[in-house]
Amino acid sequence: MSCSFGSKIKLTIFGQSHSQAIGCVLDGIPAGIKLDSDRIEAFMARRAPGKNAMSTARAEADKPRIISGVVDGVTCGAPICAIIENSDTRSGDYEKLRILPRPAHSDFAAYMKHNGFNDIRGGGNFSGRMTAPLCFAGAVCTQILESKGIHIGAHIASIGLIDDERFDPVNTEKEHLDSIKAKALPVISDEKGKMMASSVSDARADGDSLGGTVECIVIGLPAGIGDPIFDGMENKISAAVFGIPAVKGIEFGSGFEGSKLKGSENNDAFYSDNEKIKTKTNNHGGILGGITSGMPVIFRCAFKPTPSIAKEQKTVNLATGENETLSVGGRHDPCIVQRAVPCVEAAAAIAIADFII
Amino acid sequence: MSCSFGSKIKLTIFGQSHSQAIGCVLDGIPAGIKLDSDRIEAFMARRAPGKNAMSTARAEADKPRIISGVVDGVTCGAPICAIIENSDTRSGDYEKLRILPRPAHSDFAAYMKHNGFNDIRGGGNFSGRMTAPLCFAGAVCTQILESKGIHIGAHIASIGLIDDERFDPVNTEKEHLDSIKAKALPVISDEKGKMMASSVSDARADGDSLGGTVECIVIGLPAGIGDPIFDGMENKISAAVFGIPAVKGIEFGSGFEGSKLKGSENNDAFYSDNEKIKTKTNNHGGILGGITSGMPVIFRCAFKPTPSIAKEQKTVNLATGENETLSVGGRHDPCIVQRAVPCVEAAAAIAIADFII
Amino acid sequence: MSCSFGSKIKLTIFGQSHSQAIGCVLDGIPAGIKLDSDRIEAFMARRAPGKNAMSTARAEADKPRIISGVVDGVTCGAPICAIIENSDTRSGDYEKLRILPRPAHSDFAAYMKHNGFNDIRGGGNFSGRMTAPLCFAGAVCTQILESKGIHIGAHIASIGLIDDERFDPVNTEKEHLDSIKAKALPVISDEKGKMMASSVSDARADGDSLGGTVECIVIGLPAGIGDPIFDGMENKISAAVFGIPAVKGIEFGSGFEGSKLKGSENNDAFYSDNEKIKTKTNNHGGILGGITSGMPVIFRCAFKPTPSIAKEQKTVNLATGENETLSVGGRHDPCIVQRAVPCVEAAAAIAIADFII
Amino acid sequence: MSCSFGSKIKLTIFGQSHSQAIGCVLDGIPAGIKLDSDRIEAFMARRAPGKNAMSTARAEADKPRIISGVVDGVTCGAPICAIIENSDTRSGDYEKLRILPRPAHSDFAAYMKHNGFNDIRGGGNFSGRMTAPLCFAGAVCTQILESKGIHIGAHIASIGLIDDERFDPVNTEKEHLDSIKAKALPVISDEKGKMMASSVSDARADGDSLGGTVECIVIGLPAGIGDPIFDGMENKISAAVFGIPAVKGIEFGSGFEGSKLKGSENNDAFYSDNEKIKTKTNNHGGILGGITSGMPVIFRCAFKPTPSIAKEQKTVNLATGENETLSVGGRHDPCIVQRAVPCVEAAAAIAIADFII
Repeated sequence: MSCSFGSKIKLTIFGQSHSQAIGCVLDGIPAGIKLDSDRIEAFMARRAPGKNAMSTARAEADKPRIISGVVDGVTCGAPICAIIENSDTRSGDYEKLRILPRPAHSDFAAYMKHNGFNDIRGGGNFSGRMTAPLCFAGAVCTQILESKGIHIGAHIASIGLIDDERFDPVNTEKEHLDSIKAKALPVISDEKGKMMASSVSDARADGDSLGGTVECIVIGLPAGIGDPIFDGMENKISAAVFGIPAVKGIEFGSGFEGSKLKGSENNDAFYSDNEKIKTKTNNHGGILGGITSGMPVIFRCAFKPTPSIAKEQKTVNLATGENETLSVGGRHDPCIVQRAVPCVEAAAAIAIADFII
Repeated sequence: MSCSFGSKIKLTIFGQSHSQAIGCVLDGIPAGIKLDSDRIEAFMARRAPGKNAMSTARAEADKPRIISGVVDGVTCGAPICAIIENSDTRSGDYEKLRILPRPAHSDFAAYMKHNGFNDIRGGGNFSGRMTAPLCFAGAVCTQILESKGIHIGAHIASIGLIDDERFDPVNTEKEHLDSIKAKALPVISDEKGKMMASSVSDARADGDSLGGTVECIVIGLPAGIGDPIFDGMENKISAAVFGIPAVKGIEFGSGFEGSKLKGSENNDAFYSDNEKIKTKTNNHGGILGGITSGMPVIFRCAFKPTPSIAKEQKTVNLATGENETLSVGGRHDPCIVQRAVPCVEAAAAIAIADFII
Repeated sequence: MSCSFGSKIKLTIFGQSHSQAIGCVLDGIPAGIKLDSDRIEAFMARRAPGKNAMSTARAEADKPRIISGVVDGVTCGAPICAIIENSDTRSGDYEKLRILPRPAHSDFAAYMKHNGFNDIRGGGNFSGRMTAPLCFAGAVCTQILESKGIHIGAHIASIGLIDDERFDPVNTEKEHLDSIKAKALPVISDEKGKMMASSVSDARADGDSLGGTVECIVIGLPAGIGDPIFDGMENKISAAVFGIPAVKGIEFGSGFEGSKLKGSENNDAFYSDNEKIKTKTNNHGGILGGITSGMPVIFRCAFKPTPSIAKEQKTVNLATGENETLSVGGRHDPCIVQRAVPCVEAAAAIAIADFII
Repeated sequence: MSCSFGSKIKLTIFGQSHSQAIGCVLDGIPAGIKLDSDRIEAFMARRAPGKNAMSTARAEADKPRIISGVVDGVTCGAPICAIIENSDTRSGDYEKLRILPRPAHSDFAAYMKHNGFNDIRGGGNFSGRMTAPLCFAGAVCTQILESKGIHIGAHIASIGLIDDERFDPVNTEKEHLDSIKAKALPVISDEKGKMMASSVSDARADGDSLGGTVECIVIGLPAGIGDPIFDGMENKISAAVFGIPAVKGIEFGSGFEGSKLKGSENNDAFYSDNEKIKTKTNNHGGILGGITSGMPVIFRCAFKPTPSIAKEQKTVNLATGENETLSVGGRHDPCIVQRAVPCVEAAAAIAIADFII
């Protein structure tokens, strides 16, 4: 415990990769909001598996069935529950993993926590598949935030050693974000995107995998949202983003690079722009003292390479205690970063909605 | 809201830099635990101001007065409240900041949030001073964790461009951590420590400041602690660590560097060591699927350079809307990283205690 | 918000009376517990509608479909989600209630809260139907509590002016509780039960309804469970029990009657019984200072008469603002007390599980 | 755990009867609110001990020292912490109770929970003294509610067998509530008040004690506040009110009496009064489906007689396991109901503030 997030809104995610269904409950959404189901499905389609050579061959329709909280397309104030059926499951793929934990995967830790009663099929509730309901909830929150002029976009900032360009942290526009969402590979530089795709292809061919980073920006947030100490923007966004499997780091604004700078270099000077107070640079990532400054909120997060690889690896047989080797079959993404892009947007949307709704 | 943290234990921090007192309430600590007040004060002394040229000249005794929850040195099961009086306050220093927000400081964001009613004196409850009660709570949790064989240590991993050596993520011992805590400057390499002190000294002389990073390790944690999705070790530790002012990034294990690796490079192979399952490397930072693996938990966090600098900076007068320049007087740390080291340990201790107690 | 309950376990209930489905998510149940689905269904059958002349004619199978958290009948540590499809809905019955709020029903308050966007069909998420997932969760918790020797039973303590006998607050045995659960009407005195059935029958014939009280007892609880002030047994049980629609009061032990006694009459003397400390009376209802004493926990709660009655009543047309009269058609229980009995047990089981699991 | 309450605001109470101090932290109060400290102290004076023959001889100034969250009498958005020093403690009075638990008091349950490490002096954090910080927090919330036109008042509804008159549940005015607050004994009928005082006096003379009930009304609440299921007005008010030691029951509106009525009798007909929809009776206690109806919220709660009595009682020596007798010395209220009146108002104010602020 716990698969719940938020205080003003409350998101609860349930399901396992191979359970009958997965889904979520989103409580606290006000009544009277018209939800655009096409846009919800479009959001979710961006993370859906089976799209291209960069992702798993598992094909799921991933069409959410909203079973409560919405009447004739309009929220009624009751908790919104959406269910996504699990259809294309091949549980047999996973039997041997029960006693041969995959290096860098949750198998071993889950075994120790649950005394071997964890659902090993498809990684159980540790599966990347749990991000489907996260994206559903994020898509709902996104629509509400957009009605308040708040827009969220993300892109692949790097895969392996290939870096994309960076968002302009000061002057990014909604149209730019929309154009990235419309791409098959959500990058700023398509040239870099091709190089990324090629390196993923090489890794797959080699029975290996790649990690990367995602950069996310939130524009249109007014100043004054958030709290100091334990309930700041950074605390809440990071608590949501680490809910995405494989995230191992997060940084806001100039982040780790900023820690190498002098105050006179890293401080963002204020200036007055038509009665609005702004900064010309945005090393603070739109957050000061846990509270929004009115500048875009910007952060990057690090994804480790997919643990499940075909290459032979060393592990231990939990039944015998003997050292063994393992080559992971099944259908796995050689890189999950491109599918993680909408998940990061979703996590940010949920975190921000929890402050604003 | 909210200055509270935790679910099994609940920490509430209160006070402002120049209020009568600051303090905290720590609820959920079991009855019957003997607390060593000397060790609590030693823990807090490591973050106390006024120790050397690297920190502010403000001198506070910072001696906590435990007003509830402890009877004859033993916890009684009632919430533990500790108060630290604020004595050496010079509120006059801050008057002009009410309308001239410091670049990169919380002043402007707090003004916008609270419509100017925020306590501007000393940064109010956004002050680094709020980490004193954090350290009190961390010191209490540390004693409980140590009784279970869990030890936490941190060091300055970098200041500006000077890097310390790194912890051995696999084989770090308690004695090594203790030896760092005993140093005037908590670093592994004293040579690098001297270089850091020198660069801070230069920055101060220049009316400027420096940032840096802190690395923290937790040894002795059993496997199986934590949860997937929203209540994992990374979520909770990051939510606590971002409670320390000036933190702008956090990474676990190989973190951002790991995102550049291949799966075959980043995955930590399991092996059996006398019936215990371990990994020979620790790129996963002791956490898999949000749950401890039994290897040391290791993370680094980035601190921005101190915003308050003597150098002239551009800002906006909130009363007139005019652009102005500002040179921050008062007593400020040219670098807070060395004082942040025990704060990071405290945040980790509180986060872990919330899983374990 | 919020349809969630608990801290160690977390129950989230979703759905509306006429949404596609209703259900719940129960998080925090440990892995490795074998659940007896027959007993879950038997528990739920006790509250199911359509059983006899005392309840609504709406017939729902109310068979829960467990879609996550359980593998081969054993919990896997992931959140347990159960869905109950809504099949026998006649939404047309409710159209006029959108503008003619039923006296004593939630219609008007929900309209005001949700600006008329609330789901009026069947009372939406204010419906007594929401107690079906409550009973599912209660049935799961009950099985876990029983494995620890803790047993919960309830009975109709009164309907209208007819009182059943009371539980023996000191010496009630599990077998007695089981025998009541096996009855068509869960009462201690079958003679009183017949009188109750007769009075409900009269009320129905008269287009009217009746309220009543339920008494609940929890045996086998060890001493020392609970907390003072805001997290005591009384606080938590009452917060759960008021989650059942129509509950308007709760009292523990001697309750309101006890407030008329002298201390010397109401105090329960301690005595030693084979090294165990007990009380010979149980006016304290098994709870002292919010904490269990080791004696049975016993409480009673009051249910108002069903608001929906055929008799003509006065209300206001929300569209026109005119006073009107209303006779509620549709299918409604003339008395919900007998169906509430397992709901009260469920609420108690969930509240106690939240302390113990 | 836990001594915390609320979600939008968060109240944390700390201290023990004989610790250095008691107090509370109230987080979530908006910045910019002017607090009237005289009225806070007047509120607290109504529960202060030592006022008359009906209460303990322990005299405490009970003057709260606000140490954070308020600058020049105005809230600054930081958590408000108030401390009340414990001065007049006579801990020696309690030594024998460590092994001779008082019947009906928390001593035994606390001993079992905390393995004897609980603070036995004055009842530790189970003491009625913990209601002093509750009243502080309630006084703050009351001022905020009053600025929104919401007023709360309570009176002694009964002591022992003497009943006061009841509030008019439909047409009670603020002036009536104020007039009761100004009385030495907060009753509607002074004649009944005299009879109550006389019966308390008799009980004291007899080494005995009395219980009673308190009735509380909240006027000026708009319709539409609250939520169904677990976060309704009844759930939250009851969870707060059971935080007051000695409360054993609570009922809203017609409560237990209403459970004996028919629907046609208990239902409150709606009518239109100058565009506002009201009810002519108020059996629903201002709450429908957990949500306010716009009519006054009204509830009653039952207080058991003070457990600590001079009369000889039977108990068990925890050290020897032998049955013994006990006569409780020290300074105890023969009846706490009159002092509980502002506590009930405070609990209601805090619960309602948590919905509204």
